[in-house]
Amino acid sequence: MDVTKFAIPEIIFGRGSLNYAGQCALRLGARKVFLVSDSGIEKAGWVQRLMDILKKEGIEWVYYPGVSSNPRDFQVEQGARFYRENGADVIIAIGGGSSMDTAKGVAIIASNGGRIRDYEGANRVNRPLPPMVLITTTAGSGSDISQFCIITDVERAVKMSIITRTLVPNISIVDPLILETKSETLIIQSAVDALAHAIEAYISTISSEFTCMHSLKAIDLILRYLPRAVETRSMDFLEKLSIASTAASMAFSNASLGAEHALAHSLGGHFDMRHGVIHPILLTAVMRFNLDHAETKMAEIGRVVLDRTVGSPRETALAGIDRLDAFFASFDVPQRLRQVIDEGDRQYLEQICRMAVNDACNLTNPRPASWQEFLQICEEVW
Amino acid sequence: MDVTKFAIPEIIFGRGSLNYAGQCALRLGARKVFLVSDSGIEKAGWVQRLMDILKKEGIEWVYYPGVSSNPRDFQVEQGARFYRENGADVIIAIGGGSSMDTAKGVAIIASNGGRIRDYEGANRVNRPLPPMVLITTTAGSGSDISQFCIITDVERAVKMSIITRTLVPNISIVDPLILETKSETLIIQSAVDALAHAIEAYISTISSEFTCMHSLKAIDLILRYLPRAVETRSMDFLEKLSIASTAASMAFSNASLGAEHALAHSLGGHFDMRHGVIHPILLTAVMRFNLDHAETKMAEIGRVVLDRTVGSPRETALAGIDRLDAFFASFDVPQRLRQVIDEGDRQYLEQICRMAVNDACNLTNPRPASWQEFLQICEEVW
Repeated sequence: MDVTKFAIPEIIFGRGSLNYAGQCALRLGARKVFLVSDSGIEKAGWVQRLMDILKKEGIEWVYYPGVSSNPRDFQVEQGARFYRENGADVIIAIGGGSSMDTAKGVAIIASNGGRIRDYEGANRVNRPLPPMVLITTTAGSGSDISQFCIITDVERAVKMSIITRTLVPNISIVDPLILETKSETLIIQSAVDALAHAIEAYISTISSEFTCMHSLKAIDLILRYLPRAVETRSMDFLEKLSIASTAASMAFSNASLGAEHALAHSLGGHFDMRHGVIHPILLTAVMRFNLDHAETKMAEIGRVVLDRTVGSPRETALAGIDRLDAFFASFDVPQRLRQVIDEGDRQYLEQICRMAVNDACNLTNPRPASWQEFLQICEEVW
Repeated sequence: MDVTKFAIPEIIFGRGSLNYAGQCALRLGARKVFLVSDSGIEKAGWVQRLMDILKKEGIEWVYYPGVSSNPRDFQVEQGARFYRENGADVIIAIGGGSSMDTAKGVAIIASNGGRIRDYEGANRVNRPLPPMVLITTTAGSGSDISQFCIITDVERAVKMSIITRTLVPNISIVDPLILETKSETLIIQSAVDALAHAIEAYISTISSEFTCMHSLKAIDLILRYLPRAVETRSMDFLEKLSIASTAASMAFSNASLGAEHALAHSLGGHFDMRHGVIHPILLTAVMRFNLDHAETKMAEIGRVVLDRTVGSPRETALAGIDRLDAFFASFDVPQRLRQVIDEGDRQYLEQICRMAVNDACNLTNPRPASWQEFLQICEEVW
């Protein structure tokens, strides 16, 4: 094995783990916390709950509510000014990928200066970031575990991937109780995002045995428990999705992703669509595209998805991909691009595919993908 | 799941990863490194190699060679004085469990003061430790990953378990190339130590899905590759043992251990025997002792050990334990206590078993064990 790195935050996992947030902040030396969240989490009562926990520990905070779905460059730059003006010293975010990525973007600018676009790509952040505690409210984005931060460059209408080890937060708090206030749609979209993370990390050209075992664990748990979690809303099954998402995040943070995420970022940046919407449309098409370049690994994915093998490795791989199509269909989510993009906007696909080629995630795809091939995938799933 | 914590260092794994040691030290702010190793590693040339790497990065160091097998309290206290006198700021250890545990003990005293025995047990270290880079030269002890530090209290002739999250080093470097200079005996003893870590962590009362997946991975790899690694000394198989040990360490650091390690520490403290010698003697006896209290999990261990199930869960569990006995026998290592302890010393077993009950590892054993039960286990394997 070539030299490989495996870095994750300290993880505090379990029902009620949110209660540790104050102690975590204190442990990181917090005097004034920069608290990031969004209106949905506020409405669900979790921001107030977190403020009460901080208060109990005698910790001051300033609250930055400037989070939108698909966070924008100007929002994190504004947040960084707010961070500095208020003399904050530790960042806590509670929310989904958008809140946590906003927090990470603020952390980069607050300590490194400049514009967020200066840091696009891999390993371009030099100075250490403020300590971060990230509290995920979904079981999907993995931003609380990962060294990834996705911010939209408004001018270019593209989601930038910023990837660096210093973006791994100090502490990740994963409290499955928070999932109880989530909609069915969000639970499905988050789980499918985690599934895409697990699968793309597994076949990534820089995967390792350390990342692969987490990928397979996540794939198995999501196939097994997502239907039951959606149907029953039982905490036991929701917790399994949290475990799956955490495992998938450990995998993709260290193995990176592939062509599917590259294309998803590019589409998401252009159309401002929710990230979780796109995977049931693209994932299996990209898996078929990759099959010849990752047959053995795809067969292993197939074995886990099907819980058995079917003839040759190639047959198992293909049966696994078919099973995933059926799995997505069982949730009544869009599986064609035309369901989420207007016919009139189809003309932008070429430009979007040209952008996707340059996304950092595309570098670790097992089969190099040109913009023409991306376009062909888009046409296949139109 | 109750609230569970999962903390590991940043891991740099792979052939040649030793070369990153200097950059790691710089990243942690090193001006003067406190370098810890032992005479065996020195003789094999690894200390000089590491010094060359530090030199290349322009890093100064002081070398502390005061490491013995089963490090003693006075040695780490002496090391801490040496650390302070020399104004060191980052600790690097290269070696097996003894070198790395010496480094950890020095780190505790250098920053927290007092005597090392003040910190025996769980969570008794309050102040942060100096940054640490630990480079393991064996595939077994797991000290480079874990929050454990085992130091012998000379006066009481007992190995103290010191367990706290701050003992997780900042960076762990695992370079399988270093295993090439190891003896067959050491490779076997280290792998069996890792196997005991994986099994005891798996059935620990505070295991979690995060630790369990690492335990099973480690058990599978060791059963599959230890014989081939010993027979061929091929780097491919030695690397598998490094992966197994790293995975087992991620498991036991976060799930703790059990009665077998409690007894092994107590025996090791009294007789100053190598830790790896004791597991083929005790492990399966303690597994049989625990069976009724962890049948489902033992069946899962059996399934991995045998690579199949055999009748009922209990039958699979028992067949797995028998298979482990045969596995140890295949390496021509002692499997009876009388092979490593003189008949004249048998009288000390009662005292040793009374000590074992108080070891922190005994707290997480699935079946509470009294000193009389420990003694009965010792008699069974005499």
